[in-house]
Amino acid sequence: MSGADGPVTAALPDTQQGMRRRNLSRVMHTVAAHGPLSRAAVATRIGLTRAAVSTLVDELIRSGLLDELGPERPGRVGRPGSALAVSARGPAGLGAEIGVDQLTVCAVDLHGEVRARAVRRTDNRGRPPGPVLGELGALVGQVAEETRHQGLWPAGLAVAVPGLVAREGHLVERAPNLGWHGADLGGLLPGELPVTIDNEANFGALAELWTGAGHHEDFIHVSAAIGIGAAVILDGRLLRGTHGFAGELGHVPVRPEGPVCPCGGRGCLEQYAGQEAVLRAAGLDPGEDRVGLLAGRAAEGDRAVLRALRGAGSALGIALSGAVNLLDPQGVVLGGALAGLAPWLLPALERELGRRTATATRPVTVSELGPEGPLLGAAHSVVRAVLDDPATAVPAQG
Amino acid sequence: MSGADGPVTAALPDTQQGMRRRNLSRVMHTVAAHGPLSRAAVATRIGLTRAAVSTLVDELIRSGLLDELGPERPGRVGRPGSALAVSARGPAGLGAEIGVDQLTVCAVDLHGEVRARAVRRTDNRGRPPGPVLGELGALVGQVAEETRHQGLWPAGLAVAVPGLVAREGHLVERAPNLGWHGADLGGLLPGELPVTIDNEANFGALAELWTGAGHHEDFIHVSAAIGIGAAVILDGRLLRGTHGFAGELGHVPVRPEGPVCPCGGRGCLEQYAGQEAVLRAAGLDPGEDRVGLLAGRAAEGDRAVLRALRGAGSALGIALSGAVNLLDPQGVVLGGALAGLAPWLLPALERELGRRTATATRPVTVSELGPEGPLLGAAHSVVRAVLDDPATAVPAQG
Repeated sequence: MSGADGPVTAALPDTQQGMRRRNLSRVMHTVAAHGPLSRAAVATRIGLTRAAVSTLVDELIRSGLLDELGPERPGRVGRPGSALAVSARGPAGLGAEIGVDQLTVCAVDLHGEVRARAVRRTDNRGRPPGPVLGELGALVGQVAEETRHQGLWPAGLAVAVPGLVAREGHLVERAPNLGWHGADLGGLLPGELPVTIDNEANFGALAELWTGAGHHEDFIHVSAAIGIGAAVILDGRLLRGTHGFAGELGHVPVRPEGPVCPCGGRGCLEQYAGQEAVLRAAGLDPGEDRVGLLAGRAAEGDRAVLRALRGAGSALGIALSGAVNLLDPQGVVLGGALAGLAPWLLPALERELGRRTATATRPVTVSELGPEGPLLGAAHSVVRAVLDDPATAVPAQG
Repeated sequence: MSGADGPVTAALPDTQQGMRRRNLSRVMHTVAAHGPLSRAAVATRIGLTRAAVSTLVDELIRSGLLDELGPERPGRVGRPGSALAVSARGPAGLGAEIGVDQLTVCAVDLHGEVRARAVRRTDNRGRPPGPVLGELGALVGQVAEETRHQGLWPAGLAVAVPGLVAREGHLVERAPNLGWHGADLGGLLPGELPVTIDNEANFGALAELWTGAGHHEDFIHVSAAIGIGAAVILDGRLLRGTHGFAGELGHVPVRPEGPVCPCGGRGCLEQYAGQEAVLRAAGLDPGEDRVGLLAGRAAEGDRAVLRALRGAGSALGIALSGAVNLLDPQGVVLGGALAGLAPWLLPALERELGRRTATATRPVTVSELGPEGPLLGAAHSVVRAVLDDPATAVPAQG
């Protein structure tokens, strides 16, 4: 389904027209991942003739998606080819994150570089979706404006939400830390651009897939903000599940007769490794920067905090053992707030995983993206949509 | 990735030639699933022109994969079309199952009907792979001969094994109930046909996907022979995992401080819901027909057996809650030996699942294939390979 040059849009129909669109996508993915490249090098990489590639490249140059950098340096065998690169003045993906304490928006270009960014600190707990989306829309407008100022054009907006998002449409099933239940964001989103919304853990995992150091195609990504978020990447694709709710590692039973969980179950992972649970186990009050507080105390050797983090690591290891036995992934990645606590979580986590799973050599790695993952994943998802079907990427009117 | 007409072989290259092969596959899947159909009806269903379909159909008739049944009954508008059906004298898939107590082989035609079948009762516990495969080869020869006698030609052989099978090749990593560890079956398999081997739980789940009543594309299939076997079907495809070991539900921790399991973990599902564990909990000795024994005693109202089955159902429910929270499937299917015990397992299983998962309406269904699942899945996998890439299905020489 997928490779280093990215997934091919399997949904495109298998006609001449569909084939052309898939091959346009192959060219874009190849140049984005490995460029600058000559036409001949692109042809070799994707297994098409040079003539076929030239036709596709010409179309992508006309659409403003590829740039011709001029002749390659001499000294090579044969006629000098002109190097191709993704356009520096092409489409940009806008990503946004609705956090409990802040709103963030950024723009990423076809190279994957962040070109604009804006943050607004604001307490969104218990605030209805209308005002939150209104404020977010203003921030999006500001970043879009800055993007256009740099010669780029916004191709779409993706919004990361800390909650369960239904698979189709714009319905937030529940976002407990915002107090949203059954909130349809459809009419509230900024109007001009195509908008998708998704769970922050999903976008965090996608960011790791697309930009992370691991180069894995099959992994479980565990992150934490207030709750435990997780997402599963299989064969280079995000597992969404029938309703869009896959990846609910936080409610995997760790000790089935354990403490009651607001979800209705008992002894769920969140009751042992969620931030509230860890702070409670460490005898601390929930503060503003909870992860910073825990990490600081752990670094100072606070025994109650170290014990609480060991317990959380062990619970994570038990829940992940079940997940690893079921999915047989290449590895596990700790992201989000968990990345900052990894030094104290990992020993207990790896001990449980090692004794409870068949293959002892499964690496647990720590994401380098940290809390930026969901925002970057959202912006990159728009860029990937352009690479997956370049034929449909056209600047908005006006 | 997939629909009612089956998955399209995404691995085929996106060239004219690859497109032709994919479209041959679409025609075969459509006729196999919905035939007899006229060329025009096939064209409508797969979204190609009638002329394009006719070229493909002619090629499939020449290869002996489709039959022309003669003109459709008159009275329809337009020129009468000739109805197409999959060939009654075409390729057949041979499936085999290496069980602990028996060897079974069958042949399935393109219609999905079983055309030949042979069983040999034999105790394979602790028997080395050589003699077992030798005996299996003789049985395969017998079924292949009978298949040819009916005018069909064997297109391949798939073998279901009660153990972990590495993702590529013919290596059985371990099959504890046979006593096989690191057994490479490569040189021991019958020689003339292309052979694949896989875990019995995988083939059982595929049989449910392809022939089951549920028509689900996303489900967890739980079966049991001696151990607990499970397999995950996502988007109509079997989840294999990085090493080929996905679906190890039997070693998902249910009570992390529970009894030690031979796998090295503690409190694995198999320690509560495996046959040995249930018989032990019921105060019974392992007998020959263990499932029959348990079902018989449960039907008589034996309180110790009912309690043991309730405990097993509850453990299954806890382990499946974790799996459902992670994967968000459409449903759960109980197959294999568990199907026969379903009346006594289901109440406790569904109670745990209901209170521990977000969507309470997830159906748990009982497979109608019972213990035949793995054998049928193996034979059908060969037939599906023909439907997925009909261009490569050619009768063996001689």
